[in-house]
Amino acid sequence: MTYPIQFVSLGPGDPELITLKGLKALRDADCIFCPETLNRNGEVRSRAADILSGVGIIDESVIRRFRLGMSKQRAEAFTAYERVYEQALSLHLEGHKVCIVAEGDAGFYSSIHYVYDKLKAQGIPVLHIPGIPAFIAAGACAGLHVASGEQQLTVLPGTTTAEELGRLLGQENAVVIMKLSQCTDEVHRFIRLHPEHTYHYFENVGTPDEVYLNDSNQIASIRFPYFSLLIIGKSTISHA
Amino acid sequence: MTYPIQFVSLGPGDPELITLKGLKALRDADCIFCPETLNRNGEVRSRAADILSGVGIIDESVIRRFRLGMSKQRAEAFTAYERVYEQALSLHLEGHKVCIVAEGDAGFYSSIHYVYDKLKAQGIPVLHIPGIPAFIAAGACAGLHVASGEQQLTVLPGTTTAEELGRLLGQENAVVIMKLSQCTDEVHRFIRLHPEHTYHYFENVGTPDEVYLNDSNQIASIRFPYFSLLIIGKSTISHA
Repeated sequence: MTYPIQFVSLGPGDPELITLKGLKALRDADCIFCPETLNRNGEVRSRAADILSGVGIIDESVIRRFRLGMSKQRAEAFTAYERVYEQALSLHLEGHKVCIVAEGDAGFYSSIHYVYDKLKAQGIPVLHIPGIPAFIAAGACAGLHVASGEQQLTVLPGTTTAEELGRLLGQENAVVIMKLSQCTDEVHRFIRLHPEHTYHYFENVGTPDEVYLNDSNQIASIRFPYFSLLIIGKSTISHA
Repeated sequence: MTYPIQFVSLGPGDPELITLKGLKALRDADCIFCPETLNRNGEVRSRAADILSGVGIIDESVIRRFRLGMSKQRAEAFTAYERVYEQALSLHLEGHKVCIVAEGDAGFYSSIHYVYDKLKAQGIPVLHIPGIPAFIAAGACAGLHVASGEQQLTVLPGTTTAEELGRLLGQENAVVIMKLSQCTDEVHRFIRLHPEHTYHYFENVGTPDEVYLNDSNQIASIRFPYFSLLIIGKSTISHA
């Protein structure tokens, strides 16, 4: 007997923001693949493992960590994913209950979907348990109506220009920018050009290191770390 | 002693997709405001109450239902929200633990945010517990990578044209259209003009009445009900 390989979305960082379904799958698993990263200071970090530990899943004989690069080193990440694919497949075929976790939602800007697609293409049964994306948790943390009524919302994953932002925000719409560290200068420039918009800046949402700023001068003067995002709207987005 | 009024997001429909935090708040509440609607056939429906019941919250002395119109009758909805505001405020001031629930996420195209903003403006402590939006659950149900890498994602809440869709999808980006019933003809027209895109159509995600279609001819020939959404992408979005 074999069980579907489950891709369990952990949500934004607060362990209590995992779903009942996700927690059930994790508690029932024999084996949980969990990403970790090596940061610039040479420290190994795993937000995913922190979330697992927060819901009481700490058995190191169940958790299998795999190392990912922080940013754009695609080739390295894909080598890691190939290894996860092979190990997960082999454990699945031996009858184990395998979970693979992802922060946020596993199908929303999550490179782990590569492993999902590869397993699916091989005819292996896979399931995806959804989770709360970081921008939704950020909006909740600041009490925002991120998008409302007939507003359009555009999500930009870290590559944008001040001109593009101007075009997108020209019609009372809302914009979410993720991976801010990849477009710091353009975002700073846009904020200085457009003080009429409202800016909501977040770091490490749902973790003890959470930061929330809504002072545009301050936002336009700081460097953005990797886990940061910005929600921009017209004044129809209420302030916190 | 008073407690913050908690806006609890219930997620897309499957009771197991509520968060641990949301469930805790609901179990602890003295009073839960819950929307219901009257459909065209004169039946009273409440998806929110179905979700509450699915997690075992069925005490009718705790649940207070309020009636909302299905579609665009704004004035009627705001009268209902004013009543929720007044009752929630008065229960809060008497020391009760008050929750107000919303499907999906309470800050993502959710008109209940009107009540949140009004309470906050009066200095009443409010909390927003985030939830999974329907489009994220839809993507998970079909095993899609809704948006990936440097793709932009645009969410359109029911008002769009074939021309706008063409512009948005011109650059390998992804689009989510909610409230499809408001733009049926334009969406049908776009699908017939652009068979090169991939179309993923969903009704009643996360409920027993769930429908998923990815045959574009079929999608271009059906009428869309209120709880429906469409995810459109280039071929980079994997098929289920």
